[in-house]
Amino acid sequence: MHEEVGAEWQGDPEFMMSLARGLAVLRCFAEQERPLTIGQASQMTGLSRAAVRRCLYTLVRLGYAAQEDLSYVLRPKILSLGYAYLSSSSLAARAQPILDHLRDELGESCSLGVLEEDEVYYVARAEAGRIMSIALRVGSRLPLYATSMGRVLLAAKAREEQEAYLDRTELAAFTPKTLCTKSALVERLGQVRDDGFAIVDQELELGLRSIAVPVIGKGGVVAALNMGTQAARISAADLRTRCLPALRRGAQRLGMIAMM
Amino acid sequence: MHEEVGAEWQGDPEFMMSLARGLAVLRCFAEQERPLTIGQASQMTGLSRAAVRRCLYTLVRLGYAAQEDLSYVLRPKILSLGYAYLSSSSLAARAQPILDHLRDELGESCSLGVLEEDEVYYVARAEAGRIMSIALRVGSRLPLYATSMGRVLLAAKAREEQEAYLDRTELAAFTPKTLCTKSALVERLGQVRDDGFAIVDQELELGLRSIAVPVIGKGGVVAALNMGTQAARISAADLRTRCLPALRRGAQRLGMIAMM
Repeated sequence: MHEEVGAEWQGDPEFMMSLARGLAVLRCFAEQERPLTIGQASQMTGLSRAAVRRCLYTLVRLGYAAQEDLSYVLRPKILSLGYAYLSSSSLAARAQPILDHLRDELGESCSLGVLEEDEVYYVARAEAGRIMSIALRVGSRLPLYATSMGRVLLAAKAREEQEAYLDRTELAAFTPKTLCTKSALVERLGQVRDDGFAIVDQELELGLRSIAVPVIGKGGVVAALNMGTQAARISAADLRTRCLPALRRGAQRLGMIAMM
Repeated sequence: MHEEVGAEWQGDPEFMMSLARGLAVLRCFAEQERPLTIGQASQMTGLSRAAVRRCLYTLVRLGYAAQEDLSYVLRPKILSLGYAYLSSSSLAARAQPILDHLRDELGESCSLGVLEEDEVYYVARAEAGRIMSIALRVGSRLPLYATSMGRVLLAAKAREEQEAYLDRTELAAFTPKTLCTKSALVERLGQVRDDGFAIVDQELELGLRSIAVPVIGKGGVVAALNMGTQAARISAADLRTRCLPALRRGAQRLGMIAMM
């Protein structure tokens, strides 16, 4: 975002620019997490105010958005689009009971993620009902290099692909513990591949610790399964001894679904 | 669907027909729940094959869809659109811990639904991990007249609005128990409004029983909260005596969020 949507396809007669623009406007709401004015959406998409106004006019007519005073909000109909993916993806649709079981066994939130456009996408999640819970849900996205699922997914790629990803990604130090040099990350990815799991200890946020294992389906690693916890509650050593075996059993069951 | 998308806006210069077409193609996948060919999507949307091909071409370029052999599938990026709604709606975003708590207390799946375009949309859900579970999730849609949440939401409307809905809706007998005459439904809605809850007993599917209560926020009933169960497990009487009080407590907590 922040640059004009679809500029790279200008001149491709098959590419529907107005569809791209409408979807870009929809995605603004995910980044902003609150009502948006035409001016804000224009700034976020790089589209003119007139173009944004037409997109929102159309989205309102179609029932995907509504106007409230000077701002726009999304309507629940938009959920049917995400639902379309979940119901057409057999892994995401069928992972829920396995994640729920794992969450009950471990007492912590568990998630399934896939690699998409240099990010981890959460495609299923079972939340542990705690007061201090982690604000993630299906459809959340996080950077690959600083998350346990992301490292598991990256570790399955060829070394050149890992390096290309690290070259095109801005590596930020989310905490003082974040690995954010290319060399340190390449080394860690090799270790993750050897170990068959990744632990990320307060690199994304202080107080947050997580462990992930790969889900192996047709053609290799198709997803990652993780458990996240408060660092105060479970030590990194406990993650390995107590949680890893349960996660591996869950990943095996998920892999069987992914093979089908 | 099944008639040409956006035909009613033909000639409105502000309406972006190609955005409407692209979204209609995306929604096909939710109905079909599997990969789609251009021909299938053309039939479902009423769009020409050439129009569908351009939509899918654009969706592939944007990373929302992928081609697999002769069919198309959605990619996880599409989840970010549904996520945009969930993160911008404070009720849906904050309902999860309350639903999880209720699911643990009752041992059955609980959901939050809102009325949208003559259907109940599931905006949050906590699933009981059973072998025979109910295939519903966030983004699922069900008919208002044959569901407990739908009846609670309809009961909050004025009598004329209820009748207008029933006149424009095709009332199908999903089971031999389904109420599907206008007069029977209007009468039942009056009872639901008096009782402050709705029980639907195997009217949507044999073996499925559910109970719903309204969530009252700013300006009246903003959502419905329900619990669904196998008819074999919990009697209609138990729904009233055991489950209703817990649901009402949950609805009160949700109402406090909705007021904020």
